[in-house]
Amino acid sequence: MNTVAIAGVGLIGGSFALALRKAGFQGRIIGVSSPAAIDKAFSRGVIDEALPLAEAAAAADLVYLSQPISQIIETLKRLDTDALITDAGSTKAVICETARKLKRGRFVGGHPMAGKESRGVEQADADLFRGRPYVLTSREPEFESWIERIGARLVILDPVDHDRQVAFVSHLPQLLSTTLASVLAGKEQVAGPAAADLTRLALSPYDIWRDIFATNAGPIDAALGAFIGKLEELRTQFRSPEMEKAFMKAAASARALRGK
Amino acid sequence: MNTVAIAGVGLIGGSFALALRKAGFQGRIIGVSSPAAIDKAFSRGVIDEALPLAEAAAAADLVYLSQPISQIIETLKRLDTDALITDAGSTKAVICETARKLKRGRFVGGHPMAGKESRGVEQADADLFRGRPYVLTSREPEFESWIERIGARLVILDPVDHDRQVAFVSHLPQLLSTTLASVLAGKEQVAGPAAADLTRLALSPYDIWRDIFATNAGPIDAALGAFIGKLEELRTQFRSPEMEKAFMKAAASARALRGK
Repeated sequence: MNTVAIAGVGLIGGSFALALRKAGFQGRIIGVSSPAAIDKAFSRGVIDEALPLAEAAAAADLVYLSQPISQIIETLKRLDTDALITDAGSTKAVICETARKLKRGRFVGGHPMAGKESRGVEQADADLFRGRPYVLTSREPEFESWIERIGARLVILDPVDHDRQVAFVSHLPQLLSTTLASVLAGKEQVAGPAAADLTRLALSPYDIWRDIFATNAGPIDAALGAFIGKLEELRTQFRSPEMEKAFMKAAASARALRGK
Repeated sequence: MNTVAIAGVGLIGGSFALALRKAGFQGRIIGVSSPAAIDKAFSRGVIDEALPLAEAAAAADLVYLSQPISQIIETLKRLDTDALITDAGSTKAVICETARKLKRGRFVGGHPMAGKESRGVEQADADLFRGRPYVLTSREPEFESWIERIGARLVILDPVDHDRQVAFVSHLPQLLSTTLASVLAGKEQVAGPAAADLTRLALSPYDIWRDIFATNAGPIDAALGAFIGKLEELRTQFRSPEMEKAFMKAAASARALRGK
């Protein structure tokens, strides 16, 4: 891997570039982005040069699409390259199906499970992926070795399985936080840390969620159904001694989610 | 106010003692607790002496009940004093009704909206209440002035109103977190920060929740009903452009909850 083209040099694309450098990547890193993003990427030192998509893709061994999901799909339609293409979109089934139908170059879907509250290349961080799951939708040994070198935890998952799992662990929490913040409107007088903890995600901007909701509606609806079913069950139980067991099981799961 | 008796010298009682000292209280602070808690309270320097309840209450101008709710109710039944009595229990209607029926001394219900993940006097902190709401169920000028001096934000609330509000801002988030952790059991493979954020409360021990659920069942059931109604509404909407407005309203509420 000598030359990497990164389309969409924001938080994720910029962090991937910085992480590659920190892991010893000696090749060229080409940015493909808006003039404003490119300026910021140069001043953060995350790219070596900037080119339009076609030229960057022609020069690259790896094309890394770290754009919003709808733009990834548009870029895939315009891309014509022999390079390995991967993406960092938050849903995988629609993107991988688009790539499969286009039959252009090699494609492996990716999803680094990492982020920050603020976006933009200003927030880029060479350690953003460290210790975090990084999903690939199929095996790709050379790229896998870089994922390991940047400190991420490789997970191979079928696109449909991926989308079902993130509906639970990522999209469901977002919708719960948004719903809770909505229900708590006007009730801030005595709110403490619990309300703040659970409504932090409700501060997320809608623009990244539009594409996630559009490309993962079925699994999200299923996750919401499972959650509502469990909540109705606990609603009938919370006054009873049964609730102690429910707390113990939930705490065990919460510890597992923290790797403890 | 010359002498304060604190029944239950744990995180809250110990922090109240430290906060009083930091705010310039020059009088005696008497601890009423188990021998183990008293030993720890002496070694943290939060109390001047330890006495049984009756003797402490006879010596005190203020009796501060910072025990679990069911113990506060038991202590109220045993207390016979002319001192002002207050408590720090997480629900107010049952406690205030108990005190009203007993007609012993002056009583004002209290609820400092502050806490930590770990309990015990080892975690006591003179600044625990700083910037946090501190609910009193009626006016009590001398005690109010100490609440202000320890840096808390005084809120006067009727016990029933208090219990309705905390059902939304505190008990509902706990049940959502417990439910989510339960639904995510076995799905930790690709979990990221969103799942961790929303399941932190699920690590809370059940023992403090038993009494809260027992003394606030009606308001908690109503808050669960309101939440489920809103979640069902967003479940029909999340694919539609309406969702942008829902996100904006929720974000505004989440900012208000942070005082922004």
